[in-house]
Amino acid sequence: MTSDKIRHVCISGGTHGNELTGVCLARHWQSNPTLITRAGFETHALLANPAAIKIGRRYVEKDLNRCFHPANTTTDAKLLEERRAVEIQSWLKSRCNGSYPDVLIDLHSTTANMGLSLVLANCCPFNLMLVAFLKERFPEVNAYVWNEPKTQPGFLNSLAEKGFAIEVGPVANNVAQADLILKTGLLVDACLDFINDWNSGTVQLQDRDVLVYRFREHVDYPRAHDGFPAAMIHPQFQNRDFLELKTGDPIFLGFDGAVTHWDKPEGWAVFINEAAYYEKGIAFTVADKVALAINPAEFRR
Amino acid sequence: MTSDKIRHVCISGGTHGNELTGVCLARHWQSNPTLITRAGFETHALLANPAAIKIGRRYVEKDLNRCFHPANTTTDAKLLEERRAVEIQSWLKSRCNGSYPDVLIDLHSTTANMGLSLVLANCCPFNLMLVAFLKERFPEVNAYVWNEPKTQPGFLNSLAEKGFAIEVGPVANNVAQADLILKTGLLVDACLDFINDWNSGTVQLQDRDVLVYRFREHVDYPRAHDGFPAAMIHPQFQNRDFLELKTGDPIFLGFDGAVTHWDKPEGWAVFINEAAYYEKGIAFTVADKVALAINPAEFRR
Repeated sequence: MTSDKIRHVCISGGTHGNELTGVCLARHWQSNPTLITRAGFETHALLANPAAIKIGRRYVEKDLNRCFHPANTTTDAKLLEERRAVEIQSWLKSRCNGSYPDVLIDLHSTTANMGLSLVLANCCPFNLMLVAFLKERFPEVNAYVWNEPKTQPGFLNSLAEKGFAIEVGPVANNVAQADLILKTGLLVDACLDFINDWNSGTVQLQDRDVLVYRFREHVDYPRAHDGFPAAMIHPQFQNRDFLELKTGDPIFLGFDGAVTHWDKPEGWAVFINEAAYYEKGIAFTVADKVALAINPAEFRR
Repeated sequence: MTSDKIRHVCISGGTHGNELTGVCLARHWQSNPTLITRAGFETHALLANPAAIKIGRRYVEKDLNRCFHPANTTTDAKLLEERRAVEIQSWLKSRCNGSYPDVLIDLHSTTANMGLSLVLANCCPFNLMLVAFLKERFPEVNAYVWNEPKTQPGFLNSLAEKGFAIEVGPVANNVAQADLILKTGLLVDACLDFINDWNSGTVQLQDRDVLVYRFREHVDYPRAHDGFPAAMIHPQFQNRDFLELKTGDPIFLGFDGAVTHWDKPEGWAVFINEAAYYEKGIAFTVADKVALAINPAEFRR
């Protein structure tokens, strides 16, 4: 049995250049590295997309957070963000003894009313225990498992099995909102405390269930001929992230006043009216609410 | 004495391509012109910056809402938005008997907590009476008079003496938020009703004072060496647009926890933490709260 003590942690911000929460924190920690230093492991602060930050946009040529694949090579990298992904992968390996970090936490923000949320690409025991740990300290934390079956989306944090994206909102792009920045900093502090406990073998959370919201489907806006949205998120649906969406609830309001209702089985909506997802064809995502057992068989410490 | 009956009104949206409130309404009214039709005058709906709307940005090469000067000519117009300004000016004249419209209302949104606000470039009696009329129908409406003495800023709505910008928030860029879109639509309806009353001589508001917030000064973020903000709007100051800013109140919170306090005379803040103003060197604007008399000497009906 291999030891899975954590030796290298990466905290990244600015993967999307207009999400200032992560940009501000990554800059601050790069200038003040002792703030994320703990005994027993190294923490590396990464400012992921400086070119996009400079121009205040999500990305320059391609969404960087769809460019990370463990086998990426410079040969395949044509666009600015594809090249930056390769560069980041090399940088991480140079810092982490030739491997990717054991844990990668990527800081994001959203225009949706997601509060303090964690977006997981997988549900390994470490991740579920970290979710349980954070929910204990911050009862308002919600975890969303974005495991679309057909795709390997290429998230930065998917380079490491352990870790996830922290996604906070609502906040406009290109705005630094102090309350959310402070809370995100506290969440990262707590993650580092958890890793410390993990390494010292004092984590006692493996016997519980963890409540998560698991991806079911994306729903797009009704569209006009030219692709522009033909309806708005219904005012009664706006801001209802992580709340129950019942069959028959209003979801869209047309500019002519026509109301569209949810005609599928009940679910829980996330990323309602996220600015960056208009171009991705996502008005909101519907998730299932499930309690996941932290599987003791997979728990190796 | 010349008659100042209103013959031509322009309602514009999408002057900033990422402010979807105006984009959605201008598109809707272009497709459904009877919604903004009233007897006795013509209303023209303008989608001001389609190139910027298409790419979801405030502008392509230059802020269009700083490009309008009555004497603009094609010779001076180099950048995309400068050329578009000349084009719009020609289009308006072609629709309005060779002149600019009598009234121009330009629809904007802001990431600041400005609620339903009106941004006036001047305080002519028509504008003040329209403000008084709107405040009577919508008590939450606030009026901000942006008359920086040294500059002619080149706002689209400054092409007409009468009219102003409607500025609603908080809403993220590139997000269509139904409640604010519906309210903006109601404000425009009310403006058209007022113009109808104005033309029929039934406006009875000239004997009152109108409360407005008048530009005093812009305040920038503390900046790091590379120009990035070195502090955030203080959480106790965020969202306090149109509320009193007292000497000694906290205004900025540094990433190191240092607090900056307001050390000047009391004022009223607007545009607190507007995303688009980071690049303009404006963290917020301080205004004076003044009651303006609608000057009967200037009132010509």
